[in-house]
Amino acid sequence: MKPELGCCYYPEHWPEERWEVDARLMRENGLSWVRVGEFAWSRLEPTPGNYNWEWLDRAIDTLAAEGLKIVLGTPTATPPRWMLKRHPDMLALDAQGQPRKFGSRRHYCFSHEGYRASCAEIVSLLAQRYGSHTAIAAWQIDNEYGCHDTIRSYSEAARNAFQTWLKARYQDIDTLNQAWGTVFWSMEYSSFYEVDLPNLTVTEPMPAHQLDFKRFSSDQVLSFNRLQCDILRQHSTAPLIHNYMGRIVEFDHFAVGADLDIASWDAYPLGFLEDRSDYGDEWRARFARQGDPDFQAFHHDLYRAVGRGRWWVMEQQPGPVNWAPYNPAPLPGMVRLWSWEAIAHGAEVVSYFRWRQLPFAQEQHHAGLLFPNAQPAPALIEANQTAQEIESIGEIKQLQSSVAIVFDYESAWAWETQPQGQSFDYFKLVFDQYRALRALGVSIDILTVEMLGKTDHKAIFIPGLMSLNSEVVSQLTQSKAQLLIGPRTGSRTTNFHIDTCQPHLFPDAQALQIESLRPGAGYSASTGRVEHWFEHYRVPDKQVALRTVEGYPLLISEATRHYLCGWPDEALARALYTQILSAAGVDILELPEGVRIRDTQGHRFWFNYNAEPCNVGEVTLSAAGVEIRPSNRSTDGI
Amino acid sequence: MKPELGCCYYPEHWPEERWEVDARLMRENGLSWVRVGEFAWSRLEPTPGNYNWEWLDRAIDTLAAEGLKIVLGTPTATPPRWMLKRHPDMLALDAQGQPRKFGSRRHYCFSHEGYRASCAEIVSLLAQRYGSHTAIAAWQIDNEYGCHDTIRSYSEAARNAFQTWLKARYQDIDTLNQAWGTVFWSMEYSSFYEVDLPNLTVTEPMPAHQLDFKRFSSDQVLSFNRLQCDILRQHSTAPLIHNYMGRIVEFDHFAVGADLDIASWDAYPLGFLEDRSDYGDEWRARFARQGDPDFQAFHHDLYRAVGRGRWWVMEQQPGPVNWAPYNPAPLPGMVRLWSWEAIAHGAEVVSYFRWRQLPFAQEQHHAGLLFPNAQPAPALIEANQTAQEIESIGEIKQLQSSVAIVFDYESAWAWETQPQGQSFDYFKLVFDQYRALRALGVSIDILTVEMLGKTDHKAIFIPGLMSLNSEVVSQLTQSKAQLLIGPRTGSRTTNFHIDTCQPHLFPDAQALQIESLRPGAGYSASTGRVEHWFEHYRVPDKQVALRTVEGYPLLISEATRHYLCGWPDEALARALYTQILSAAGVDILELPEGVRIRDTQGHRFWFNYNAEPCNVGEVTLSAAGVEIRPSNRSTDGI
Amino acid sequence: MKPELGCCYYPEHWPEERWEVDARLMRENGLSWVRVGEFAWSRLEPTPGNYNWEWLDRAIDTLAAEGLKIVLGTPTATPPRWMLKRHPDMLALDAQGQPRKFGSRRHYCFSHEGYRASCAEIVSLLAQRYGSHTAIAAWQIDNEYGCHDTIRSYSEAARNAFQTWLKARYQDIDTLNQAWGTVFWSMEYSSFYEVDLPNLTVTEPMPAHQLDFKRFSSDQVLSFNRLQCDILRQHSTAPLIHNYMGRIVEFDHFAVGADLDIASWDAYPLGFLEDRSDYGDEWRARFARQGDPDFQAFHHDLYRAVGRGRWWVMEQQPGPVNWAPYNPAPLPGMVRLWSWEAIAHGAEVVSYFRWRQLPFAQEQHHAGLLFPNAQPAPALIEANQTAQEIESIGEIKQLQSSVAIVFDYESAWAWETQPQGQSFDYFKLVFDQYRALRALGVSIDILTVEMLGKTDHKAIFIPGLMSLNSEVVSQLTQSKAQLLIGPRTGSRTTNFHIDTCQPHLFPDAQALQIESLRPGAGYSASTGRVEHWFEHYRVPDKQVALRTVEGYPLLISEATRHYLCGWPDEALARALYTQILSAAGVDILELPEGVRIRDTQGHRFWFNYNAEPCNVGEVTLSAAGVEIRPSNRSTDGI
Repeated sequence: MKPELGCCYYPEHWPEERWEVDARLMRENGLSWVRVGEFAWSRLEPTPGNYNWEWLDRAIDTLAAEGLKIVLGTPTATPPRWMLKRHPDMLALDAQGQPRKFGSRRHYCFSHEGYRASCAEIVSLLAQRYGSHTAIAAWQIDNEYGCHDTIRSYSEAARNAFQTWLKARYQDIDTLNQAWGTVFWSMEYSSFYEVDLPNLTVTEPMPAHQLDFKRFSSDQVLSFNRLQCDILRQHSTAPLIHNYMGRIVEFDHFAVGADLDIASWDAYPLGFLEDRSDYGDEWRARFARQGDPDFQAFHHDLYRAVGRGRWWVMEQQPGPVNWAPYNPAPLPGMVRLWSWEAIAHGAEVVSYFRWRQLPFAQEQHHAGLLFPNAQPAPALIEANQTAQEIESIGEIKQLQSSVAIVFDYESAWAWETQPQGQSFDYFKLVFDQYRALRALGVSIDILTVEMLGKTDHKAIFIPGLMSLNSEVVSQLTQSKAQLLIGPRTGSRTTNFHIDTCQPHLFPDAQALQIESLRPGAGYSASTGRVEHWFEHYRVPDKQVALRTVEGYPLLISEATRHYLCGWPDEALARALYTQILSAAGVDILELPEGVRIRDTQGHRFWFNYNAEPCNVGEVTLSAAGVEIRPSNRSTDGI
Repeated sequence: MKPELGCCYYPEHWPEERWEVDARLMRENGLSWVRVGEFAWSRLEPTPGNYNWEWLDRAIDTLAAEGLKIVLGTPTATPPRWMLKRHPDMLALDAQGQPRKFGSRRHYCFSHEGYRASCAEIVSLLAQRYGSHTAIAAWQIDNEYGCHDTIRSYSEAARNAFQTWLKARYQDIDTLNQAWGTVFWSMEYSSFYEVDLPNLTVTEPMPAHQLDFKRFSSDQVLSFNRLQCDILRQHSTAPLIHNYMGRIVEFDHFAVGADLDIASWDAYPLGFLEDRSDYGDEWRARFARQGDPDFQAFHHDLYRAVGRGRWWVMEQQPGPVNWAPYNPAPLPGMVRLWSWEAIAHGAEVVSYFRWRQLPFAQEQHHAGLLFPNAQPAPALIEANQTAQEIESIGEIKQLQSSVAIVFDYESAWAWETQPQGQSFDYFKLVFDQYRALRALGVSIDILTVEMLGKTDHKAIFIPGLMSLNSEVVSQLTQSKAQLLIGPRTGSRTTNFHIDTCQPHLFPDAQALQIESLRPGAGYSASTGRVEHWFEHYRVPDKQVALRTVEGYPLLISEATRHYLCGWPDEALARALYTQILSAAGVDILELPEGVRIRDTQGHRFWFNYNAEPCNVGEVTLSAAGVEIRPSNRSTDGI
Repeated sequence: MKPELGCCYYPEHWPEERWEVDARLMRENGLSWVRVGEFAWSRLEPTPGNYNWEWLDRAIDTLAAEGLKIVLGTPTATPPRWMLKRHPDMLALDAQGQPRKFGSRRHYCFSHEGYRASCAEIVSLLAQRYGSHTAIAAWQIDNEYGCHDTIRSYSEAARNAFQTWLKARYQDIDTLNQAWGTVFWSMEYSSFYEVDLPNLTVTEPMPAHQLDFKRFSSDQVLSFNRLQCDILRQHSTAPLIHNYMGRIVEFDHFAVGADLDIASWDAYPLGFLEDRSDYGDEWRARFARQGDPDFQAFHHDLYRAVGRGRWWVMEQQPGPVNWAPYNPAPLPGMVRLWSWEAIAHGAEVVSYFRWRQLPFAQEQHHAGLLFPNAQPAPALIEANQTAQEIESIGEIKQLQSSVAIVFDYESAWAWETQPQGQSFDYFKLVFDQYRALRALGVSIDILTVEMLGKTDHKAIFIPGLMSLNSEVVSQLTQSKAQLLIGPRTGSRTTNFHIDTCQPHLFPDAQALQIESLRPGAGYSASTGRVEHWFEHYRVPDKQVALRTVEGYPLLISEATRHYLCGWPDEALARALYTQILSAAGVDILELPEGVRIRDTQGHRFWFNYNAEPCNVGEVTLSAAGVEIRPSNRSTDGI
């Protein structure tokens, strides 16, 4: 299957006479997919129970007439104003107890039963009307779950649902008291209906209470999404998709993804660099027009796992956006680079957001493929070029990677709940490792814990995983892969108690003190330093593969199993991972900063995120350059 | 008319036997005006409907007996505690929905009809009693509109009034839907009574919604102020004044000023430097005891325009104040310098706040002309010196300036609503330009858009003006002045849609991408750099007067009309403005940092804001020095 | 009496069969005290009115059987969940009006009468049951008043109590109006029931209003504590203790301490360094594993005064904690150093928190003397070593110090209310002085104003004391001590009016301007600089002991009395204090940074807070070293 391009289109924003022109231009520029409808509820149901489908019928037909395949969105992320009259208490409340009011989008609480019923209604009608329409080639459910911090709500609906959820989980309140440890500070409950949401407490609430609330909040997304899945599948065989965002960890994307057919995400490299990067102002300045060189790839690999191999970019940044602290224009060539990088990582479709820049409302500064006056914007040229290049290159087949990293949403919630040091962030811990590995030229798969028993990767990295249950410990013990585990991995039971078996794979090791370290503090070893975090263990000498200069064990090793006692800096990471990969028999290629590669069956892709040309061996990369070289690997790393 | 000096006095704070002494000392020290009464409501009406005028009668008579002219303030900025019982819902709510409680001042919502009625009552009684008193030579209405962020309220009274305002503006709800573009994100309304205030939304509310709320909030000040004007004019022919503040842009001062006879402002150079300056800590440290060298002049020129030529300093800082992050003492000489600078810019009266430092309550650390123990403070000496110098110099007549800058409150609301980059601030954009022009030695007028068709300035600067309607475009096209327009000027319609005609005066130019730039980023040209903001245009070569090194048009020119595509740094501003002024035939004089001049008919005033002496050509300025040199200009710039 | 060691133990957290082992281990490791019960309300009264004492009986007996003396805590800091049903409005509200909910601890408003009654009930029952138990050797009331910012509540209960408090203080409302100066801004009240709490005002509320609210809030702690004292004393003769915290100034510890028999505090050197130190990141990095070298000593000396000579460390940090921004492990040796330093300052008992690290709930990362798996943690070894050293050294007797500093909680409230410059903090002002004196090798007593007339210290320092009444002025005038007063001392009347008598001891001085200074700004003198704050006085030449280079008086002196006009930097402080101490005949010894000494009868203790060894004269200190040298002083400073 050849990769394809598409765009996001809002017929309701433009005069009907323009639709045909737009559809033709899309096709002429090499786009074959178009997403519509996901914010159009007030046009589909202008007043409660009065529907207006005709305009959408015509829009779909007009687009289909040009051969475009359509992704139809359910409009549940933007309930109309009248919905508030039907369900006055459907708004989420923030952690301060403030209602999150109508006037933008995503103004609903996932736990509100009434709103769920209204969603079921409109989705049913949509599914019935368009479920068998031949042009509807996929469905998008809702839009960007979690955008604008919308997963966790502190409303009455949420509290009631949380109590029900707790009751289902623990059955009786004594079990909860035991699990949470409420004897501490006299926090014991006599009924599930006494348990409030964990906000506005005098000092930090019980960590197990917080973690369960985060699990619950994630589960509410899951059931909200599933409700729509179930309805859509009754009426349509087209694949179901959701468009996730970057660096949103408040719900378990793997769990939601399991109910869907394809994962997709909205890739805004420049916006995310300004808004969600931890690497400081110098880094941001360097990559301001290109984006972080690893952020997109990380999410590509993550969502490939979430989609069980099938994934898209649903929204690709085409120029300056409107929502980041600063919104520069991409370096010429970057839109093409981002597109090709997605494809190299396995994207079936790369769809640009949006077709045409809208001259009004919140996103009027958000670039499109067309300018507001319908003239072509630079991204259209690059999309067109990419489309032509796809034509000439043809199908791209993914390779199984040799290297894998475990990513686990629950662990993100755990360490957000109890970072212990303010610089401890789970996403950053994993992403640091991902970046260091990718700088060594390897292609990476992302795994859940559940996948651990079923993979044959040669090297597996498991940083900061909250829990290691006995089954996983047993799988790891039997694994033939080189394993780099830690720091912090397996340090909690599922009830958020300290797991005294840590580090699980080394029964002779005794856990001692754990430290979080201020910026600049750390421990040095011959090949680099640890920062942010350090765990002290008493270990038999023969298991100490690396010590700090003070003599503290830093890497505990036995056969193929390694436990890393701290958070490595870049130098230590490079040294350690090189050693692990080498032991695993994985080829490495040290890449210059900003240059990255991706291997597929038949090709090696080179990407230059730098604003200057760069030579790596025989490969010459222009600024924002993409090089696609034939290769004949059927698996990587050999 | 010779300039005069005055002070602010609170007889209610001091024993009655002291009044006569104070009045005499005022006169003996050269003060001829005294403001009283503006915070005295609880003494005038101690309980609802029971009035106590006698003390004020006696105070006025005592002051008048020394020949002092009196400004009588309406006390509506400080409603007494009992007013809250009459109108429990009269408090403003902040954007978080919190009431802004009694216990300081300005605790009222401009939209509360009940409170307006109570204001009308007390103002009527005041006006009736003192409207024909010969000593009452002016009225001040309320006090410092907008101080403490008090323009915008999120109360129920505000919401109701906003709905009424919208109905009056748009007549029917479909017009509003169209104007705002509510089809975006399904935000359509079916009635004006569905439109809420634009706070607490999940992500940013509709920009047109925000802008209209800001327009409405400004209009509420206008009508609140007009209510008092109408009452006062029924009973008095004395001029009406309001005392504005520095860098408050939340209401349209020009609109309020149109209902008044004289504009005035409260000039706190050191407080504003610490509290409201954008120029960083090094700048603040350098001018900590002197104030920003251009901040006062900018407001003098602004309020001269607001007052249609008639303006005062109602409150002049006399020493350390109490409310800034740090409150140092002015450099000796600065009180005199500030006074003379105001006079040079046309102030009819400079009035010091306050006569005597009060030993209790919130402002006990705010200096006066007297210390708390009634001994003379340094400012009294400088005020006295200034009074004597005025006597010897006599009348000061203003010159028409050759150079003008447009300042527009609505544009401040527009870019606050949608800065697009977090460093974009309208006031700073205009003020940067003002400072750069003033550093070239020119005197400047500030204009509204409405004045553009009626002036004969030789050079007009129009940065960041939100909208250019066709009438203004036509006036500009016909103007003989050198025009420097942009960046961002004319980029929105009045409904806050992107105006695709931008840049209006250059129909051959095609707008491309717009960028906001992180600190340190920018584009270079031969004479300097642009920062913060850049607009890309496709322009015929012959219209490109300056390009960036990358080749992007930076200055688009045709005849006397110039469009500036970005925010210039200091070097670029100096180069560009020199070129524009030179083309306009305006003389320039490059001044050292901290030195500024002002030309009037008959005099050139020199001001040294530096803490060290400074020579400029034949003029020698001491630290904090003022030099007044005769000249014989009848218009400037020749 | 020999100093003793102890620990904090929670039998309710561990299996009953473990209790005996723990008790034995405590004894074997040299601990003789154990605190229990202070968070166990939900286990003592699981449902309202149903009590369960038996487990506590058994726990106490088990501990007593090993000869351990028991501190029994009243559990009022952690009311159970069911208490919220009984008193739904018992929660404190924060300054934003948000309830501070159940789910952690300290979720009560001190002013809630219903909750007070419930506290009286449980405390009565505890006292009746255990008041004559021979093993109960002390009582702890509540836990860490003020922790988590819990002194000031903005609830309805607080408002009502505040009105009652005001009525008791002022008797009639006109007196309050006069005292506060409510004529300013028309803030006059006609009844005490109109006075609201001073939060959520438009701009800052009346300072006297704020100060009275802070006085009231402190008084509520006092009466809450006294209620429990009165009950306990009816049933027990064991001493009453409260465990205070570090740098909490929101209530008057001296006043609370007057109702108790022993003061104690919870000493967390590393947590406080990260969380409550003003000395910047370089300082924090240097002492990250040791703690601030003066913070503990300051509180030791403070609480020795609060306890009128009798004081403990109730909770001593034993390893990494869980609550600071970063939580590193102490340098080996520091637990011993902290213990000995407390003893040198007179601690009767040093009790480690906690016996064993708990694997669940909020404090699971808080180290104990045992690891979660019951293995000994490093602190147990150091505690054991300390116990042995105590045995060999025997009794430690305190010396009367020659040098004293006045510390006054009301002054902290005053300058928090009206800092005038954002860097003015009362605690820091006093602590800066304490540190500079201690760096000169002197031992210091901390005094209240009330103690001033009753001491014979040779040098007394009185920085930033809000008020000097005539009695104190008279005592100071008659004092034979060298007195260093100021800055800001005596600048307010008790009603928070400017006191125009300042500087009181120098009737010929006339107060002029007062300045707060931005960082970097200041005035220089020959021996150093003043920063943050400067007061200008006109003084007879002969009284000017030191001038700034500008000629402003910096030190005003007459005989033994000195007034300091600004906040000295380190160099100026060293020079001035050396001069004062020398005039007082107090020996000084300039100590290297991080090295401190403490003199007792018979010993000089040396402490090295540095991470490197250090030599001072003949004394060689290892990193984290303690040296105890015999000496034969009966009073110090000779």
